[in-house]
Amino acid sequence: MERPLILSCPLPRSLPLILAPDRLADLHARYQVIETSDEELPGLPDATLAAARYIIGQPPLDTGLLARLASLRCIFNVESNLLPNMPYDAAFARGIHVVTTGAVFALPGAEVGIIGFGDLGRAVAQVLRGFRPRLSVYDPWLPAARIRDQGARPADLATVLGASDVVFVTAAVTTENRAFLGAAEFAAMRAGACLVLLSRADVVDFPALMAAAASGHLRVASDVFPQEPLPADHPVRRIPGFLLSAHRAGALDSAFLQMGEMVLADMDLMDRGLPPMMCKRAERETVARFRSRPVTAN
Amino acid sequence: MERPLILSCPLPRSLPLILAPDRLADLHARYQVIETSDEELPGLPDATLAAARYIIGQPPLDTGLLARLASLRCIFNVESNLLPNMPYDAAFARGIHVVTTGAVFALPGAEVGIIGFGDLGRAVAQVLRGFRPRLSVYDPWLPAARIRDQGARPADLATVLGASDVVFVTAAVTTENRAFLGAAEFAAMRAGACLVLLSRADVVDFPALMAAAASGHLRVASDVFPQEPLPADHPVRRIPGFLLSAHRAGALDSAFLQMGEMVLADMDLMDRGLPPMMCKRAERETVARFRSRPVTAN
Amino acid sequence: MERPLILSCPLPRSLPLILAPDRLADLHARYQVIETSDEELPGLPDATLAAARYIIGQPPLDTGLLARLASLRCIFNVESNLLPNMPYDAAFARGIHVVTTGAVFALPGAEVGIIGFGDLGRAVAQVLRGFRPRLSVYDPWLPAARIRDQGARPADLATVLGASDVVFVTAAVTTENRAFLGAAEFAAMRAGACLVLLSRADVVDFPALMAAAASGHLRVASDVFPQEPLPADHPVRRIPGFLLSAHRAGALDSAFLQMGEMVLADMDLMDRGLPPMMCKRAERETVARFRSRPVTAN
Amino acid sequence: MERPLILSCPLPRSLPLILAPDRLADLHARYQVIETSDEELPGLPDATLAAARYIIGQPPLDTGLLARLASLRCIFNVESNLLPNMPYDAAFARGIHVVTTGAVFALPGAEVGIIGFGDLGRAVAQVLRGFRPRLSVYDPWLPAARIRDQGARPADLATVLGASDVVFVTAAVTTENRAFLGAAEFAAMRAGACLVLLSRADVVDFPALMAAAASGHLRVASDVFPQEPLPADHPVRRIPGFLLSAHRAGALDSAFLQMGEMVLADMDLMDRGLPPMMCKRAERETVARFRSRPVTAN
Repeated sequence: MERPLILSCPLPRSLPLILAPDRLADLHARYQVIETSDEELPGLPDATLAAARYIIGQPPLDTGLLARLASLRCIFNVESNLLPNMPYDAAFARGIHVVTTGAVFALPGAEVGIIGFGDLGRAVAQVLRGFRPRLSVYDPWLPAARIRDQGARPADLATVLGASDVVFVTAAVTTENRAFLGAAEFAAMRAGACLVLLSRADVVDFPALMAAAASGHLRVASDVFPQEPLPADHPVRRIPGFLLSAHRAGALDSAFLQMGEMVLADMDLMDRGLPPMMCKRAERETVARFRSRPVTAN
Repeated sequence: MERPLILSCPLPRSLPLILAPDRLADLHARYQVIETSDEELPGLPDATLAAARYIIGQPPLDTGLLARLASLRCIFNVESNLLPNMPYDAAFARGIHVVTTGAVFALPGAEVGIIGFGDLGRAVAQVLRGFRPRLSVYDPWLPAARIRDQGARPADLATVLGASDVVFVTAAVTTENRAFLGAAEFAAMRAGACLVLLSRADVVDFPALMAAAASGHLRVASDVFPQEPLPADHPVRRIPGFLLSAHRAGALDSAFLQMGEMVLADMDLMDRGLPPMMCKRAERETVARFRSRPVTAN
Repeated sequence: MERPLILSCPLPRSLPLILAPDRLADLHARYQVIETSDEELPGLPDATLAAARYIIGQPPLDTGLLARLASLRCIFNVESNLLPNMPYDAAFARGIHVVTTGAVFALPGAEVGIIGFGDLGRAVAQVLRGFRPRLSVYDPWLPAARIRDQGARPADLATVLGASDVVFVTAAVTTENRAFLGAAEFAAMRAGACLVLLSRADVVDFPALMAAAASGHLRVASDVFPQEPLPADHPVRRIPGFLLSAHRAGALDSAFLQMGEMVLADMDLMDRGLPPMMCKRAERETVARFRSRPVTAN
Repeated sequence: MERPLILSCPLPRSLPLILAPDRLADLHARYQVIETSDEELPGLPDATLAAARYIIGQPPLDTGLLARLASLRCIFNVESNLLPNMPYDAAFARGIHVVTTGAVFALPGAEVGIIGFGDLGRAVAQVLRGFRPRLSVYDPWLPAARIRDQGARPADLATVLGASDVVFVTAAVTTENRAFLGAAEFAAMRAGACLVLLSRADVVDFPALMAAAASGHLRVASDVFPQEPLPADHPVRRIPGFLLSAHRAGALDSAFLQMGEMVLADMDLMDRGLPPMMCKRAERETVARFRSRPVTAN
């Protein structure tokens, strides 16, 4: 049995742009594909036009040309905007579909890692949700099930570093993790990957992070710095590919007001002899390990 | 009955930062609040310390001071990182809670409007989902229920313009909506609001949009322009607060590959005598109204 | 301007079945509606047929009749299964839509109340989620925000009782709530409402609950009883509208195995000097108030 | 290094109830487990009590006994209700956790199959969502991506039949699928599985379905029958394990009212020259294949 015939004129796209090599091979195995163009299509032999089942692209068609496309079932516009270049009524009367592939915008999900999955890490995961990332999380203080609950994959540090397009560092500073991300860890990340530092500068070897950005190996964004406010002449300010913000992440007025609501709600509970449930409690087991320095201003 | 006593030393926060005026009034109605500081707290009268039920802030406490705080039930750290400045074990042995309000990061949702709710508008809504925006949508071609299905509020154009912190313009160009967003519409937007233009430049009065950005009334980002590629000397390039991208939104390799998958899946359906279900079909009723010009390159 | 014409023959439905009185009035205000039937429709005057824009129902149509329906835009089949009783090709060639309203199955959400919102109450809320209920919750031990987090409305006991079609009782027994649901509370519920008792029999006045079911005021289901196992001659067994199960809710093998996983995960955390995170901890403030008797067997 | 010591007295549970064989082996590999009971525990040697790190179960403990448990870190109550049988304050002062595993109620998800994934099948999937089933779907008219979009796995018919604990049949009747589920298909289902027939009786070999229920191989529920109304003496009424409902699924008043809303919304769109978007359209390609008989009453 003969393979159905496709006329292909997908400019400004191309078949290799929209089909991975194996899928392109599938296409050719299943269909006879004639590469043509908007200009050449009307000049194709009558028998070819009469046999074409699908058109990839949306070439201009007049009534006569459409009539010659006697087997046509569907025109696939892969540019995403329908063009006013054909007699739609005549096509629809024959049951020919004209379709666009516009729905794909923004669907592709990146591989994202989060290091440290406390409140801050979870807030980042929540914000990223709309992008449908593939999310892997390293947090040695959390059971795997609590990470899976949030729709993320538990992973070890090497995996998160090596497999992610973007790594968010949201780990609190403890007695054990000072500068635990250094030159070796940055080198283990993908070339061109992004590292976003949101928690405290002390969890990274900051000069090594600057070097990783300066070399072009990583793109870096940081909200926190070894000295705050950051001195005007600090060399990090001159590294292209190192984006700075001034310890402001999350510092929206509405976020502060929500803090107050949490405090009031928990006071109300405790006034009634109940435990606090809105704020996060320090834990006997871990509290002695935290080592944050206080911030000095809002 | 006496109001419970609170010692307040929330630096680097302040009570008015974390409590709206009415909530601050609630606090004072319900509790006796003594404003103090990390330094002054140890010098407070014994009776005051003995009566304090809550501390807002996390002042340094030594064993003796903690013992004097005989009624203490909870320390509210509102800076979000626990400090190594107190004998936690002694506090925990007495059942005193030490809590942080760190969970609030990034929760606050902005008011966001979307104009035109086809594939592109829905993709934007999806991406924004993680930010939990309050979303209003104007699309005269859609029934209200289809907008509500996506978790958004149907609204008229004036409402979307006037009530949004950020407006995304994702409307396709039709025979009816050329330049339907002009000086009057931009003036109706909130001062300081953002407008993000993603579909086609023809739906706005582009000089008026430039003027709205140049005056500082709006902040603007656009992916599309009246001429593409955008001439190097085009005046829009020199307007601060007007962010440019080069008709690239959504143009990720993986998005293109997904186009191909949709095409293959629909061909497979049609080969089996079924209608296409992955791509979006042109509609008899509306197809004649679309007026996009083709893009010229990837 | 004349109102568009609708031919209505929606059997086995009827217009008052599918349109609330105010919406039916809207329909008549906006359209001229001719009530007809499958049999009478072909005999309508030519002018009427020629003017009809919509048909509600899917009467048999032959080619001639379809041709006479010159203004027809859409046939609304409100029975949900398309019928092989018309020349679809001819209709489609003219761009006439034939549509069904089948998508509504199971959408309507009941008003559901939950009393007690601990693990059990939350599990019930989770299971109900697919039915999209309007959920109100009474739990005096929880801050309102923790109830809203789960997509439910915090409410007082009177509201939950009076406004719900179904009430789930999942409150643990405490020193304070023994038999807190009695004759007065059951009388405050809607006639014909359902009460599902899942936690412990001691939270209700069981004879009063039996009376409420026996009188037909409530329909009741209970998994727990004042004596367990329930004696064979217990009168509750003979009350129609009182459904019994034998303290088995949740007692699936896989649920028990999940318990073990939680235990192992928390042991692993504590072995590493971390606090337990999978199981639920007893709280100093409330533990003394729990008053459950142990169950005696699986 | 010695394995940590666990005292196990989990009645009314047992370790094999809450731990699968491989996990039980893990437990023994990692810990030294002493099986005891509420009664025997106080008589254990001092050295044993002093070494115990965890207790599985919640045996009665008095102050003296708790003091002898010098290494105790956590008591795992696996019955789910905390018992008033120990000095909690003394335990908490030492930082000993007392935890319950109650959160597992209702979590386990069954393997569920759906045959036919039109509006009805999707509505079933939506209702089941709260149970977090593992969902596989067979629908030869749908592309795999449209099934995955709904959180289900596309599968062939044999897989759905053989792998599901419950199978919902929601396929419409077509020219091709009359009685496509018969004795062979029912035999291919798991012994004890449930089949729920919701669409039309014509898609199954009804006598074969009755036989599968009568033999005890399947449990069956059906909303539809070869004759409707179902004759009073129809033999299906006497088969235990065959649950009947009278073609009422989805027939709630509110569902009918929603039909009317969909009709009005689509009329409004078409009055404005737009295509219908709320109702489901008949498709040229498939409409000729539907073969439902109309229902005769509401």
